Amino acid sequence: MKSIIIASTSTIHGSGYLEYLLEELKIHFKSAEEILFVPYARPGGISHNAYAKIAAKAFNSIGKTVKGLHEFENPKEAIENAQGIFTGGGNTFVLVNQLYKNDVLVSIKEAIANGTPYLGTSAGSNICGLTINTTNDMPIVYPPSFKTLGLVPFNINPHYLDPNPNSTHMGETRETRIKEFHAFNTQPVVGLREGSWIEVKENNLTLRGKLDARIFEYNKTPYELPTNSDLGFLK
Amino acid sequence: MKSIIIASTSTIHGSGYLEYLLEELKIHFKSAEEILFVPYARPGGISHNAYAKIAAKAFNSIGKTVKGLHEFENPKEAIENAQGIFTGGGNTFVLVNQLYKNDVLVSIKEAIANGTPYLGTSAGSNICGLTINTTNDMPIVYPPSFKTLGLVPFNINPHYLDPNPNSTHMGETRETRIKEFHAFNTQPVVGLREGSWIEVKENNLTLRGKLDARIFEYNKTPYELPTNSDLGFLK
Repeated sequence: MKSIIIASTSTIHGSGYLEYLLEELKIHFKSAEEILFVPYARPGGISHNAYAKIAAKAFNSIGKTVKGLHEFENPKEAIENAQGIFTGGGNTFVLVNQLYKNDVLVSIKEAIANGTPYLGTSAGSNICGLTINTTNDMPIVYPPSFKTLGLVPFNINPHYLDPNPNSTHMGETRETRIKEFHAFNTQPVVGLREGSWIEVKENNLTLRGKLDARIFEYNKTPYELPTNSDLGFLK
Repeated sequence: MKSIIIASTSTIHGSGYLEYLLEELKIHFKSAEEILFVPYARPGGISHNAYAKIAAKAFNSIGKTVKGLHEFENPKEAIENAQGIFTGGGNTFVLVNQLYKNDVLVSIKEAIANGTPYLGTSAGSNICGLTINTTNDMPIVYPPSFKTLGLVPFNINPHYLDPNPNSTHMGETRETRIKEFHAFNTQPVVGLREGSWIEVKENNLTLRGKLDARIFEYNKTPYELPTNSDLGFLK
């Protein structure tokens, strides 16, 4: 059964890496002793090794080991044999560029289709959508394409941020940016606030966490969707 | 003589479109009766016509007319014959995509080299740098390349925003993003605060406006540069 967690963030303010999700991850990855970690997004430009250590520390606390995808000579084979896959956040462009370079997007998609449980946070969640056209990240490298896994029939906007009514800054708000996206694209966008995630169980998509999500559909006024809502209607 | 204004923003809080720059623009465009406006960045997805009207209103107030590049059958010829060129802000990816589609980047570069005065604001300033790898915009379309005019030997970060010490949001600060850029690229980045601009007169580059700029050089701690500083040392 397809089993995916698409989380807005790895870390909520005032708690440790993945801490708010650990109880959930015990269940999500219950069949996995070792998690295959995709460290390609390199937050702050840190090395794959340094990043894998951060992921390992969190998973060790629930009795699981972590191995970085960069440690394998054959990444496709590593993905095929994985018991569980976690793609961490960082820079979405750097992540997507490396996924294309190593030609592993199809392998990840196939593993997930075959039932390998997947966790994505932030950039690792962006790639679960149809494209990365709604990432918040700075485009510090030029990837061969913006097309990604399409595990859900819409785009993700992680770290969704409500407009600050006191701001005097003339840069666009997140809502303005997503509206602009819809001047050129038609797929829905789910604005996932920090602490929210989408749970995919085969064909069932559910919003989880304590907060509502903001939904942007083409040619519609954006609206709030309460937590635990079914997201299956979005396409 | 090469004459360029690379402005952080078109509009500062509490004043009208281009208002803070109008006195400067009277001098900058003194030889031009008609300004050729590049409306490709389409802020909020508005039409080229609607956007050209906004620019026209501002320039009419200093006795100049505006014609949109989209109104010409042959955009290359229009650029070649322009008395002055203004590229407005909006979405940098949409702008760059259209510039490549119409194959006019080289024409703009040549016109500027031949002395046609140029004004860029926001996205229109981003394209004056080497690449758009340091834009703040959402990548809502996929352009053929991130390489741009290279009128200055560095990258621009317009609407530069200092970190908010009170924020609990886990998204990256602007400074973090630019540091991440330098994990993959070596050219300097000038963080231009709203109300600042770079004045280019032939080979002289000067920071203008009331505020300091934040300078990011590869492998150096970011630092402040006072207004009216020479930027010629950056490369």
